[in-house]
Amino acid sequence: MKTRRTPAFAALRRGRQNLLAAALVGVVAFTSASTHAQDPLASWNDGPAKQAIVEFVKATTTDGSPQVVPPEARIATFDQDGTLWVEHPMYSQVIYCLDRVPAVVKARPELASKEPFKTVLSGNREAIAKLSQDDLMKILAATLTGMSVDDFNAETKKWIAEAKDPRWKRPYTELTYQPMQEVLQYLRANGYKTYIVTGGGQDFVRVYAEQVYGIPPEQVVGTAGGTKFGYDKSGKPFLTKEPKLLLNDNNAGKPEGIHLMIGRRPSAAFGNSTGDKQMLEYTKAGDGARLAMLVLHDDAEREYAYGPAQGLPDTKVGTFTQALYDEAKKNDWTVISMKNDWKVIFPFESK
Amino acid sequence: MKTRRTPAFAALRRGRQNLLAAALVGVVAFTSASTHAQDPLASWNDGPAKQAIVEFVKATTTDGSPQVVPPEARIATFDQDGTLWVEHPMYSQVIYCLDRVPAVVKARPELASKEPFKTVLSGNREAIAKLSQDDLMKILAATLTGMSVDDFNAETKKWIAEAKDPRWKRPYTELTYQPMQEVLQYLRANGYKTYIVTGGGQDFVRVYAEQVYGIPPEQVVGTAGGTKFGYDKSGKPFLTKEPKLLLNDNNAGKPEGIHLMIGRRPSAAFGNSTGDKQMLEYTKAGDGARLAMLVLHDDAEREYAYGPAQGLPDTKVGTFTQALYDEAKKNDWTVISMKNDWKVIFPFESK
Repeated sequence: MKTRRTPAFAALRRGRQNLLAAALVGVVAFTSASTHAQDPLASWNDGPAKQAIVEFVKATTTDGSPQVVPPEARIATFDQDGTLWVEHPMYSQVIYCLDRVPAVVKARPELASKEPFKTVLSGNREAIAKLSQDDLMKILAATLTGMSVDDFNAETKKWIAEAKDPRWKRPYTELTYQPMQEVLQYLRANGYKTYIVTGGGQDFVRVYAEQVYGIPPEQVVGTAGGTKFGYDKSGKPFLTKEPKLLLNDNNAGKPEGIHLMIGRRPSAAFGNSTGDKQMLEYTKAGDGARLAMLVLHDDAEREYAYGPAQGLPDTKVGTFTQALYDEAKKNDWTVISMKNDWKVIFPFESK
Repeated sequence: MKTRRTPAFAALRRGRQNLLAAALVGVVAFTSASTHAQDPLASWNDGPAKQAIVEFVKATTTDGSPQVVPPEARIATFDQDGTLWVEHPMYSQVIYCLDRVPAVVKARPELASKEPFKTVLSGNREAIAKLSQDDLMKILAATLTGMSVDDFNAETKKWIAEAKDPRWKRPYTELTYQPMQEVLQYLRANGYKTYIVTGGGQDFVRVYAEQVYGIPPEQVVGTAGGTKFGYDKSGKPFLTKEPKLLLNDNNAGKPEGIHLMIGRRPSAAFGNSTGDKQMLEYTKAGDGARLAMLVLHDDAEREYAYGPAQGLPDTKVGTFTQALYDEAKKNDWTVISMKNDWKVIFPFESK
């Protein structure tokens, strides 16, 4: 067997190159030390939110700390829409489903004259905005199920690469929050496994989560439907997406989904709406140091302002009620003010 | 900030200690090389099964190999009962459920006079062995649901620490297969994430999988029921195990469960019965190098012999049919003969 030699090992054998080898190792150590000296939360203003994150990480990852969490148990969960990226004025997955309607109708022409598909095809934005929850469920079922998992993944991948947000005229994947990206990286650098726990579709978010957040598919928990195993004409097995709901990953469904998919209670959880309330309660109910944070969208200029907590406008997407705000204040959860806590909102602003 | 120096970095600064630093690094490199020189599959006899594992790992993890799999996509799935540990004469989880009946009846005395609980309480082994599938489902529902997740975990942990297999008079957790433990470690050492994909209860196996196999809870996929989020009298949130089946992780349920819980197709899959057939088909249907292996229990002396493939006795637990054997041979799956491929069966034999 031929031994693969590391530079340092070769140096030991050859004697005369010790200095070069040690210098190389030294350079690596130095680079690493200088990286660590940078602020991992550089886009956060100093204040209670930033302080809460840093203190939590210190308490749970410093050897000898009474609240240290073993590396294998370091779990942090993040809501996606409104917590990691923009959710206004409409969840990107709903836009995906609306965009998919023409292709679905082409494959099933009988839908063209049926509601709610007829309204979507009309292109009448006002009428589309008024579609009921039931109508939306019909559109979701028609556009997210009935195809193979592979076909769905390919369609989503194509859409996510091409679709653009009308306000910023950029792909949705660029509208992630830079300060939250830093939290993800900071937690991972300290041994945390970061999970997305989203009310959005699990299969949908899994398509891009690795590229956008560095979160692999198996660490995305979301609203999930069943699949059906079968064989194509050549005998090759494949999975079909079924219109059967297994997990509605909102509200109480979030801790239930965390138990189903992860099987451990998180040490830290991040959200921005009433749909995240139970996940934060469940996280805080564990022993030791716990971090529960809620993003408050109070920056109409740089992003959007909505609540209705703290007198912010009441909108239909991502509701942050005053009751949730009061619960946060009472239970030592930290409310993040986009306006005051974040130096920049998006990664492209800091370049 | 005080800079933490590696030995090599300090040597660079101090100049004169270069030789010592390089020597230290060299020793580390040498130790590591000699560890790698040991056979990672020491309990396997040379033969096509061992060769298939080694060649698969080489093809999928060697830089520059045309079939290399990126580290983040290296997924291997293992059935548990009969693949990683003994499943005869009864699945350990069924024994757990039977053992729990007295406690359940104590809490719900009205069950004492009702079947199948009456039969279980009688202690009549012959009658218990004859219980129907429906009876067993009633026992499973009564013993695995209706309590909090925390209570269930505590009960299971206690049982698994105390219960013993009657033949070997050892805890079930010692009846894992040493050669398969080596495969788990070998795959992990080569960057694979190892998952259990079991027909057994997901919550049950998660209690001990980390201790027994080095597999964390979030990498255990199994038959899973729903939970219900609620609050206790003090307002503390908790999850209750519900008698609602979300995933029957057997047969077609295995690839469906893999999609739900992992979201990637495995590169390697291991099983031992018809319940694993679809998981192996799904694994093999992907591109590139794939490994599909089935453990054949053909060692009546050291463990058990059952099939009915290859004329082995037909038993009710872990059925390996001749049709499955033929499919394996036809599709380049590897059948592992316990008798011929394994030098030892259990870890305690090699000590």
